[in-house]
Amino acid sequence: MYDSIIIGSSAAGLSAAIYLKRRGINFLLLGKDIGGEMAIAGEVDNYPGISHTNGLELTEKFKEQAKQYEIEPKAINVTEITKINGGFVVSGTNTENHAFEEKTKSIIIASGSKPKKLKIPGEKEYYHKGISYCSVCDGPIFKGKPVAIIGGGNSALESGLMMAELCPKVFVLTKNAEMKGDEILIKELAKKENVEIIKMAFTQEIFGEEFTKGLKYLNQNTNEIKEILVDGVFVHIGMSPNTDFVPDNWNIKNKIGEIITDKLGKTDIPGIFAAGDCSDIIYKQIAIAVGQGTIASLSAISYLNSLEK
Amino acid sequence: MYDSIIIGSSAAGLSAAIYLKRRGINFLLLGKDIGGEMAIAGEVDNYPGISHTNGLELTEKFKEQAKQYEIEPKAINVTEITKINGGFVVSGTNTENHAFEEKTKSIIIASGSKPKKLKIPGEKEYYHKGISYCSVCDGPIFKGKPVAIIGGGNSALESGLMMAELCPKVFVLTKNAEMKGDEILIKELAKKENVEIIKMAFTQEIFGEEFTKGLKYLNQNTNEIKEILVDGVFVHIGMSPNTDFVPDNWNIKNKIGEIITDKLGKTDIPGIFAAGDCSDIIYKQIAIAVGQGTIASLSAISYLNSLEK
Repeated sequence: MYDSIIIGSSAAGLSAAIYLKRRGINFLLLGKDIGGEMAIAGEVDNYPGISHTNGLELTEKFKEQAKQYEIEPKAINVTEITKINGGFVVSGTNTENHAFEEKTKSIIIASGSKPKKLKIPGEKEYYHKGISYCSVCDGPIFKGKPVAIIGGGNSALESGLMMAELCPKVFVLTKNAEMKGDEILIKELAKKENVEIIKMAFTQEIFGEEFTKGLKYLNQNTNEIKEILVDGVFVHIGMSPNTDFVPDNWNIKNKIGEIITDKLGKTDIPGIFAAGDCSDIIYKQIAIAVGQGTIASLSAISYLNSLEK
Repeated sequence: MYDSIIIGSSAAGLSAAIYLKRRGINFLLLGKDIGGEMAIAGEVDNYPGISHTNGLELTEKFKEQAKQYEIEPKAINVTEITKINGGFVVSGTNTENHAFEEKTKSIIIASGSKPKKLKIPGEKEYYHKGISYCSVCDGPIFKGKPVAIIGGGNSALESGLMMAELCPKVFVLTKNAEMKGDEILIKELAKKENVEIIKMAFTQEIFGEEFTKGLKYLNQNTNEIKEILVDGVFVHIGMSPNTDFVPDNWNIKNKIGEIITDKLGKTDIPGIFAAGDCSDIIYKQIAIAVGQGTIASLSAISYLNSLEK
């Protein structure tokens, strides 16, 4: 039985791993690869201690540090966690779809979040055929082509600013009456002549042939269905936590599926800790995930010590 | 009136400053210099994203980032904060002992902590004459000389390991029956042939002439007073928060003076936030201070937005 299993190997999970390793804890780190959402973060100027970097570069720095500590994540897709006498079982599948199952005294959930889906016709069909959830990753593919961005917050604003530099025409569709987010970003975007912000717009459908050709939206003011022709659609309508593997009847998730923790990263179940974007902290930032991963690991160590007494 | 004043310019304070600056908040950063306790941290291998560094180097990186953002701390010693209509007044003195006073809508307390004193005869007299609270800073001065380290936790252990490399004889005095701290450190120290750990030892007095010559301690087991002759005494008995300027009747401090916060860095007084080692988070780590500084700044921004509505 392991002392601890960390689920997720992005900023929070790796920070926890560094601390567990230093304390000689017998643990596993589960995750596709070191990085997670961090790797697709674009420009990063606000990670304290590193003046100017980007998601990929910061991910490389984390990888280097993991290597130095001989921390290697196991590529496991976790599908279930269950309680047993004296601990928990973590189950899932590896990259060859073989079953994985390990026992552990404690779990640190640091599984991050994924972009929310629109859940409209055409979204699945044209995914990777014009539809993307990551402007930073896929934006450059659409250079010189008209695109639409769906969303009303900071990531939609950032995507708009980025795509305005690459594309002749950028539509930004928000279902709200105004864009919400940092004043600086809203003002910057308003200055771009090739950006058209469409408010009160509910996207209804994405259509095309082999690739995306456009989208239809409902104008809430006029109740009309309108159509715009674009080659790319970027969806930035928020994130959803990766916590499906946490049983609902454990009652440690809030309405939107985030793990509820106290300020020491503890949940209501002794031995279960959470940190970073999958937790119910309302601010999702790399620096916060790092701090929370550190706290959760120290709380887990304190829990393990209490068991041994 | 400022939107916010950050008190303290180490890891937590600077992290908060970066976020406030990015959001265009009108704020002041008060602190002697960027760094604080961080600068004297010695080797730092556990700051996520930076593989191997030390307190001074990490402080330089923070300084560089501050410069890039045009953030400059004002060297103010804060002595008092008071409530006024619509906000607070922060009072203190500058390096020339001139009075400082500014109004602000919110305060982020990130004032860190300082080493605890023994409060025994000779301690004040021989400070900087053989007595030090920072092995990393002053250790090398005592190369080739016998020294004593007072304390029973991780920083005493780390100091012991460091001084064992420099000195012919190192005494480590703990008032407990066993050393407490990381297993790895305890085992490493036990291996050192020039280190003598004295348990159940209550240090009574530090004596000398112009400089420190030795110390007296009470052996709790035998009730005897014993004397050892050393040229240096390193005191590592814990830290105490720098929060004297926070009025006791605000009821936001715990018994040991730490600022009580929720997990968003809020205190019970709207507009007052805290982060890092001066707060009541039980784990004191740079990575945690950075995460908490970030959280406190975002909570302060949210508070400021609520005022404007």
